[in-house]
Amino acid sequence: MRATPADHVAQNGFVVHTRGRGFTEITDKVGEVVAASGVHTGMVNIFSLHTSCSLLISENADPTVRDDLERWFARAVPDGDTIFRHDEEGPDDMPAHVRAILTGVSLVVPVHSGKVQLGTWQGIYLWEHRLDPHQRKITVTVLGH
Amino acid sequence: MRATPADHVAQNGFVVHTRGRGFTEITDKVGEVVAASGVHTGMVNIFSLHTSCSLLISENADPTVRDDLERWFARAVPDGDTIFRHDEEGPDDMPAHVRAILTGVSLVVPVHSGKVQLGTWQGIYLWEHRLDPHQRKITVTVLGH
Amino acid sequence: MRATPADHVAQNGFVVHTRGRGFTEITDKVGEVVAASGVHTGMVNIFSLHTSCSLLISENADPTVRDDLERWFARAVPDGDTIFRHDEEGPDDMPAHVRAILTGVSLVVPVHSGKVQLGTWQGIYLWEHRLDPHQRKITVTVLGH
Repeated sequence: MRATPADHVAQNGFVVHTRGRGFTEITDKVGEVVAASGVHTGMVNIFSLHTSCSLLISENADPTVRDDLERWFARAVPDGDTIFRHDEEGPDDMPAHVRAILTGVSLVVPVHSGKVQLGTWQGIYLWEHRLDPHQRKITVTVLGH
Repeated sequence: MRATPADHVAQNGFVVHTRGRGFTEITDKVGEVVAASGVHTGMVNIFSLHTSCSLLISENADPTVRDDLERWFARAVPDGDTIFRHDEEGPDDMPAHVRAILTGVSLVVPVHSGKVQLGTWQGIYLWEHRLDPHQRKITVTVLGH
Repeated sequence: MRATPADHVAQNGFVVHTRGRGFTEITDKVGEVVAASGVHTGMVNIFSLHTSCSLLISENADPTVRDDLERWFARAVPDGDTIFRHDEEGPDDMPAHVRAILTGVSLVVPVHSGKVQLGTWQGIYLWEHRLDPHQRKITVTVLGH
């Protein structure tokens, strides 16, 4: 291990147009920001500026995994649950907030050799929890040398 | 995007006096540490030194959202659940640990133009999971330029 | 608070040999990477390159807490749940992915006075969610001055 000067910070954003509830892979978009930053070794933060969608690292090979994630969360946090009072925007309003709390809106991933360092089966996803399409703003911040 | 020298790190802490189970917004306290750091662009880590409260980013407009979060978690991780053996400190002891694991004790948020960059409806909250009041120590670390 | 030059980044990895489902404390291994980095003040990211184990900060004193965590997750995300389609690797395959999503694969912790800053009762753990033993690769990245 070498401790070397940390002399770069870069920050950029992009928008994800979702088509309603479901997953959008953003691994490549994050990788583009990291490549443009010129950072070789460090970390990258990916942050969603919203409270009803999530950022997560999930299995990237078999889409059935994401179907199963959706099924588990639909049972654990059902739309229209009568314990919820906050439903101005519909039966998926409060469940979207609970899902976002359970899965998070901020990720930190290592940058290694100028690339986002992910495992073989890992991908970075935005998970839209609302039933309707939305425009989701993401900020990517890279720190390192 | 400009890649510019990352030449600052700043770290400071504060204590949150909770009044028992419930939410305390700490967005402004985090913002004060970021402002004092002089960092213009980068990221900030907010970390809780405890295992029975959480840090989370939640909807900041309608308090009913936080009431509903509490209701969902009270049902999913009920106090006094008979599957729990660790109950030295009462029926809320182990549920507080499970809630803290599910929601996390560490956040990373972008710093942009010298400020914590949050979405319009996002606030940073400490969620006390114990029924009694506690003093919760938070460390804030800012990195960037 | 002093804002001082952020002039170091260090990155290293290690492998955790798990013995099947359960917890392995990695606090000391993370501390070694931080000590070797020479960073005095900053933050450290711990990242798992897998989708069926987690990294989490949990109570480090009473092992019953970890037994209870396991019991709660075993009930909330049961092996062999018939809602899951993704089961090529067995009844613990998809539950491992759901558990990893709920608890996360990336942690950020402050570095203070050259050490990982944790609360008195906090430890850093790898939680293996598969029933069989696995080799889990962890990347540790330290940034600060």
